[in-house]
Amino acid sequence: MTAIKNVSVIGSGVLGAQIAFVIAHAGFKVTAWDINDDAVEAAKGRFESIGNKMIADLENVTESSVATGRDNISLTTDLNAAVAEADLVIEAAPEKLELKREIWKKVGAVAPSHTIFCSNTSSFLGSEIADACGDASRFINTHFANRVWLYNIVEIMPNPETDRTYRDVVVEFFNEAKMEPVVMKKEQRAYLLNTMMVPFLQAAQYLYVNDVASVDQIDKDWRIAMGSDMGPFQIMDMIGLRSIVNVAEASKEEQPEWKKRFTEIAKQMIEEGRSGQGDGKGFYTYDSEGNILAQ
Amino acid sequence: MTAIKNVSVIGSGVLGAQIAFVIAHAGFKVTAWDINDDAVEAAKGRFESIGNKMIADLENVTESSVATGRDNISLTTDLNAAVAEADLVIEAAPEKLELKREIWKKVGAVAPSHTIFCSNTSSFLGSEIADACGDASRFINTHFANRVWLYNIVEIMPNPETDRTYRDVVVEFFNEAKMEPVVMKKEQRAYLLNTMMVPFLQAAQYLYVNDVASVDQIDKDWRIAMGSDMGPFQIMDMIGLRSIVNVAEASKEEQPEWKKRFTEIAKQMIEEGRSGQGDGKGFYTYDSEGNILAQ
Repeated sequence: MTAIKNVSVIGSGVLGAQIAFVIAHAGFKVTAWDINDDAVEAAKGRFESIGNKMIADLENVTESSVATGRDNISLTTDLNAAVAEADLVIEAAPEKLELKREIWKKVGAVAPSHTIFCSNTSSFLGSEIADACGDASRFINTHFANRVWLYNIVEIMPNPETDRTYRDVVVEFFNEAKMEPVVMKKEQRAYLLNTMMVPFLQAAQYLYVNDVASVDQIDKDWRIAMGSDMGPFQIMDMIGLRSIVNVAEASKEEQPEWKKRFTEIAKQMIEEGRSGQGDGKGFYTYDSEGNILAQ
Repeated sequence: MTAIKNVSVIGSGVLGAQIAFVIAHAGFKVTAWDINDDAVEAAKGRFESIGNKMIADLENVTESSVATGRDNISLTTDLNAAVAEADLVIEAAPEKLELKREIWKKVGAVAPSHTIFCSNTSSFLGSEIADACGDASRFINTHFANRVWLYNIVEIMPNPETDRTYRDVVVEFFNEAKMEPVVMKKEQRAYLLNTMMVPFLQAAQYLYVNDVASVDQIDKDWRIAMGSDMGPFQIMDMIGLRSIVNVAEASKEEQPEWKKRFTEIAKQMIEEGRSGQGDGKGFYTYDSEGNILAQ
């Protein structure tokens, strides 16, 4: 049984930074890697902002616990140094298969033989990447929701060669990191969450395109009837319309007219600077804290 | 503008009794009608149980407020008397088109000329029933979620002939009755909620049939990632597998293998007395309060 002490996070973008910070805040030593000094500098700003959001959102997070979390992170642009003492490597690189395989080839070559490899890919299966690291039995997919500290789920998806022992270590680690691991039995493109969420969001898009009800009424309906924090259009604003369009355009199935129409509307909104919370507006307008100001 | 004082609820089954009681508890005079003395007797038992559940679930509901609510309801088997002084009639009869049309023909013939007519149908459009009452401009569909006091949404769906003035009166009434009206702009089979919920539940069924993850892991995933009270299998247990099977078998579309397989499993569970919360067990086992005991 491997105990996880040192964690490396490869890629410090929006989600990578959240993963690194939440794990560091839980008391683990984290090395966050990114490609160059600019990216590392951007990551520092992200950590600052994530810390503030955690204080605002969570009762038991304080200035002091955030400072300790920040002290637990070291940043580097040196991949070898980043993983040389890692017990666990979490890769959160951009969603490009060749890029991910290349990273895992490099990581696998320098990481210790006990290191467990987690790829935070949303589009690819583990079995499409795992062999690159040199030992698929230590390779497993992990999938986080945006705002990791708040929606602290992590979907854990083994590939057919993943060793159950390593899977169990990963589950235990995420429990210790104060997250909520969800264990999948087998590979499923889109994991559990997106498998369920995509058709739900599409149904909301259908209602919108056909003007069956206004955005705020559809969201209100879902929130109250389902006892849910957010309705579908709030969720789309949070995810960002660029991702919604990317998912729609990646689909190989013939799309019905209403779906094509929704993609057109979403593209128009992106062009107008209304791509969602990232722009401060989407279906709703937001303040700097992400609260809805108006529809 | 019509002010609503007297409300009649036609049909005192599971949902009709909830609607009647929640409205009476909010201070309105309610006449609850059902077909014969046995049905009326059963309704009394339902009111008792609903009152107890409201006390358990809601902070501001007391023994005393429940007693007042009960005093606001009168029960009858005389349809003419039930609607003679009604400002609003809510029909919650079984989902049979001819039965509903027959009821509305009778109600329309005896109700005052200002009375507004609400049909709580889930399968039929208002335009398939409205003409039976004699004045489609006063006819509108209302759709409630189970456990009306807790999931207090009411979807309000006008038919093409519904007068906007009456729609607005209905919206105001439900606000006063401490519910959460959601206004639709036009007719849509399955309303807003079921249009979104059915594909979401089907995706969960797909994951289940393919054994991608266990029921509790799928539910946990949805609850935490979506900030939601219930996961899909908890929702199916609440709705009851009979309804799930009915919806599946009413669909005229060719169904994929996994969907047929899920319907088979659900039928088997119903046969074994595991149809959901109504049986005390479904995907989970429940105590008498509806709390999950085990999977």
